[in-house]
Amino acid sequence: MEFSSKLIEKAVNEMSQLPGIGKRTALRLVLHLLKQPKEQTGFLSQALVAMRQDIKYCASCHNISDSVMCEICANKNRNHQIICIVEDIRDVMAIENTGQFRGIYHVLGGKISPIDGVGPSQLNITSLVEKVKSGTVTEIIFALSSTMEGDTTNFYIYKQITESNIIISTIARGISVGDELEYADEVTLGRSILHRIPFEKGFKNN
Amino acid sequence: MEFSSKLIEKAVNEMSQLPGIGKRTALRLVLHLLKQPKEQTGFLSQALVAMRQDIKYCASCHNISDSVMCEICANKNRNHQIICIVEDIRDVMAIENTGQFRGIYHVLGGKISPIDGVGPSQLNITSLVEKVKSGTVTEIIFALSSTMEGDTTNFYIYKQITESNIIISTIARGISVGDELEYADEVTLGRSILHRIPFEKGFKNN
Repeated sequence: MEFSSKLIEKAVNEMSQLPGIGKRTALRLVLHLLKQPKEQTGFLSQALVAMRQDIKYCASCHNISDSVMCEICANKNRNHQIICIVEDIRDVMAIENTGQFRGIYHVLGGKISPIDGVGPSQLNITSLVEKVKSGTVTEIIFALSSTMEGDTTNFYIYKQITESNIIISTIARGISVGDELEYADEVTLGRSILHRIPFEKGFKNN
Repeated sequence: MEFSSKLIEKAVNEMSQLPGIGKRTALRLVLHLLKQPKEQTGFLSQALVAMRQDIKYCASCHNISDSVMCEICANKNRNHQIICIVEDIRDVMAIENTGQFRGIYHVLGGKISPIDGVGPSQLNITSLVEKVKSGTVTEIIFALSSTMEGDTTNFYIYKQITESNIIISTIARGISVGDELEYADEVTLGRSILHRIPFEKGFKNN
């Protein structure tokens, strides 16, 4: 792609470093900004820089937070004995939206993935293991992606806390609500039969 | 969407003002920036602000340029008597990529679209009409989108320059190379029969 202006070229190059944004999309976005008032570009870049500079992580669960302790960890009405382990802030938001969980979270910040160069030491695993060993936790729920990397991460953590006398569970795998069996893959379908649940439970808490 | 941090919320809100970027995508992009070194966010916002502040438009064709005159207009080897009228810089890049055009351009900066609140006065039409009336131009090629707005803009400009003694043409409408007739819409197919070309011409300049 050849640009008539170095300024445009630089902006497009920086923009296209973002995941899922190719050069063409980046150019479309940059040209959009050019048509908007200057302030919009100013606000956007200020917001990004402020976010990147001043972001804080909850000292307890590593969730993104504006204070030392995030709102969930600071909430005394939540059950601090049950910890739900998730990959990142998006998963916290997704689970919070269901309204089905009243415990606290532990945000790993990713999952073990040798291909992407992410090992256990880059994730917030040590602090989790310490928390479990301190004896204040009664249950751990794994809520990681149902992928090879997610399963590996689950297993890595499991091996380190298995001796603690706590309940370790994982979120249910099965057929999504609204899915037709015909289109479900066989592993999912197989697991959903293996881990079948009492019929009455199936329509509770919909 | 509820965020655990005002900084994230602000960044996501600003990001999702961009066309085609919803809140979810914006959050994904923002979290990506958080995982990258601080410099990347700095470079991105600097590039955007610099682009928005210092951008210049060619005094002759209104293409985006780093100098008073863009490279195409400043090039004496190009035919300055033939002007190709386009909507924006992307169209200039697309036509330049074909290598089929050796004239110069005139960038309108959009097309007449009452629904989006864009009237003729917001586009670079006056300077084009002046250029045509000055008598240095021998041919005008309309290369706007084949939409209602594109056709309206073509016609608006056409009415103002029709008295000048110049050739006015529009880029050919027809079946795209590689397309099957079966899937072509009837207007396109109809036009492609109306404006059929001598067979020998069809495989020239492929």
